[in-house]
Amino acid sequence: MDIKIDIKKSGVSLAEVKAFDEAAEDAMDMLWSGKKDFTGWVRLPLEKNSEALEEILMTAAEIQAKCRLFVVIGIGGSFLGAKALIDSLVEEQPGLPQVIFAGNNLSGAYHSTIVDEVRKKETCICVISKSGSTTEPLAAFSVLKEIMKEKYGKKASGRIYAITDEKKGQLRREVHKEGYESFIVPADIGGRYSVLSTVGLLPAAVAGVDIKSLLKGAEIMAKDPAWDLDATNYAAARNALMKKGKKIEIFEFFEPAMEYFGEWLKQLFGESEGKEDKGLFPASLSFTRDLHSLGQFLQEGTPVFFETMIMTGYNKKDIVIPDSAGHPLAGKTLNEINQCVAKGVIKAHEKAGVPMIIIEMPETDAYYMGQMIYFFELSCAISSYINGVDPFDQPGVERYKEEARREILEL
Amino acid sequence: MDIKIDIKKSGVSLAEVKAFDEAAEDAMDMLWSGKKDFTGWVRLPLEKNSEALEEILMTAAEIQAKCRLFVVIGIGGSFLGAKALIDSLVEEQPGLPQVIFAGNNLSGAYHSTIVDEVRKKETCICVISKSGSTTEPLAAFSVLKEIMKEKYGKKASGRIYAITDEKKGQLRREVHKEGYESFIVPADIGGRYSVLSTVGLLPAAVAGVDIKSLLKGAEIMAKDPAWDLDATNYAAARNALMKKGKKIEIFEFFEPAMEYFGEWLKQLFGESEGKEDKGLFPASLSFTRDLHSLGQFLQEGTPVFFETMIMTGYNKKDIVIPDSAGHPLAGKTLNEINQCVAKGVIKAHEKAGVPMIIIEMPETDAYYMGQMIYFFELSCAISSYINGVDPFDQPGVERYKEEARREILEL
Repeated sequence: MDIKIDIKKSGVSLAEVKAFDEAAEDAMDMLWSGKKDFTGWVRLPLEKNSEALEEILMTAAEIQAKCRLFVVIGIGGSFLGAKALIDSLVEEQPGLPQVIFAGNNLSGAYHSTIVDEVRKKETCICVISKSGSTTEPLAAFSVLKEIMKEKYGKKASGRIYAITDEKKGQLRREVHKEGYESFIVPADIGGRYSVLSTVGLLPAAVAGVDIKSLLKGAEIMAKDPAWDLDATNYAAARNALMKKGKKIEIFEFFEPAMEYFGEWLKQLFGESEGKEDKGLFPASLSFTRDLHSLGQFLQEGTPVFFETMIMTGYNKKDIVIPDSAGHPLAGKTLNEINQCVAKGVIKAHEKAGVPMIIIEMPETDAYYMGQMIYFFELSCAISSYINGVDPFDQPGVERYKEEARREILEL
Repeated sequence: MDIKIDIKKSGVSLAEVKAFDEAAEDAMDMLWSGKKDFTGWVRLPLEKNSEALEEILMTAAEIQAKCRLFVVIGIGGSFLGAKALIDSLVEEQPGLPQVIFAGNNLSGAYHSTIVDEVRKKETCICVISKSGSTTEPLAAFSVLKEIMKEKYGKKASGRIYAITDEKKGQLRREVHKEGYESFIVPADIGGRYSVLSTVGLLPAAVAGVDIKSLLKGAEIMAKDPAWDLDATNYAAARNALMKKGKKIEIFEFFEPAMEYFGEWLKQLFGESEGKEDKGLFPASLSFTRDLHSLGQFLQEGTPVFFETMIMTGYNKKDIVIPDSAGHPLAGKTLNEINQCVAKGVIKAHEKAGVPMIIIEMPETDAYYMGQMIYFFELSCAISSYINGVDPFDQPGVERYKEEARREILEL
């Protein structure tokens, strides 16, 4: 069993998909050539660097033994992937440290809560930043490092882990000075494609995610050329829908634990494709919650969007409605009813003429999440090339950062 | 001091706003006439039903004394408003029960966690549903009621509160049979406009929100005709931007505690306006987190959106970056840096030609949240009328529900 990608309800014809065949072929050649910068993630699952993997697992075990609270500091690609994996895959953490995330915003209130937790619990910290100079993680790390020093004195360094550039930057220099245990942010992998590197793997492993299965899922995808076809079909369907005037791709899940996978997808697609006045605006909805807020719009609002529905397998915990309830839900489980609503939504939206792409995961586990991640990374890169943009740069991000830096200096 | 609404950076001219003057006047007349169904929320803050308010406050105090966990069961308008208030306004709850929400999705895993909590902690439950037959709250209530009966026997009924229709529906009948303490979902207020009724007030009061200040803020808005102008200007600007081809309104916050206010806004606007193939797709972003995922798109992606930035006042907890940090952030606070980034984003997006509407709250407290809520409700209703749709119906929601019901019966 593997994940399934179904574009039959997208309203895109085979001919419309085929029209992108050559562009998709060129994109695949480019990605596998090894000649393009920032394509390290393409081969990553095939490299099976078992030494590096063992080091991550050993460090994770060390962290698990050392603390009750593991604070992961990072933003964007140094945050969303790890959080997506942990939220979707870890139901309980018996005996494992709680993993929380800092440095992903600049809220004093948000970080005050984290400071209180660090003071109370046995803590280890992992700071993830390629340069070490990104404002949010730098601010959070500066604050939390101070608390760690107050609490643990000279032993604080032994509880701080860093994932950063191999040679350059202020965080790497600090690693040299302070002797933190450290890992490398791969030079040829950009942030939004980095979740299957140490950046995502170490936090996930500490939280109890089976990272070997995760990588195995991605490896299957990378190995078998059959998947290239699924990825190119999805990429082509998205571009065909854009040509037909669609402006928004809505990623949808029927499970709240998948919400951060939605956030990860939004960065992946938004940052890869949103340039040169191009790209679909990526949105995500959490069902059934959002059927009661945006369900009306999806059914009858401006038809400017299509839906990419991600149906997760229900291998997780479930609850039976008591037989005595005395209504049609009695004796059924929540997850069963959830799946009925999902089927109902597909039928109703099909009748409303909403283009849908449906992706099914047989189960919500690490193996299939590995497949999902690689599938979307590959599709996104192909889709960007088809649309004539570079999937691996983000020139626009510098704009607000420059302005913000000026404001901070004037403070 | 009041909240401030600024459309100067929206790129909409005074003449373009004025073009909607007559339609906006007609909308205001309609809303205040009392002749239109579901406009009870318009006068609600002026009614100052102090008896009803005292009853809510007394019940809240009773619940606070009785339990450590208060589970609020509801979805859509019976959920998002209360959650938005509690998340944005309650920083700590010393001595108050923890308020959590159930019945807002159909995830077995999500509800298993809640079941475990109910088993462990002294619990009261509040079920909010006009009909009592909406799938999600019905399922969750059936499950949790059973646990409460196991735990408290006959005394369970004294720990269950219901907010439902005054006369009709299965939940009202159950109130009669079981003797739950109950409140009324006002007949002339639809779900998405109900947060300032008992639906939002009771859960918020239990969590410690100052609901008198909240209502006071709304009252000021409803009383002073000067605010009508702000609401009509915003409504007109949105419609003008729609006419210019914008398809998406992005609500943005620089504070994660405001995320659910974004969800509330999405329901308010999406469900009021998304009909007859019309309406802006409402999205929300949480900054600075999402500057590192969608910042690129906002700066250089398909220019199909405008931004409604909500700048919250920083009266909340804050943290100073240690003076010893040795970088330009040293000695500054997180909230100060956050505001610098906000200014930087506005400058950068202005240079990129992104239309912006900027709304400022002097402080993030109950009074200003009351102003915000009433301002957006009023603007949304006016905006819908200007666009020629009924802000108070949601005919499309029934579509998927019918299909889902069929699937459930076949299960």
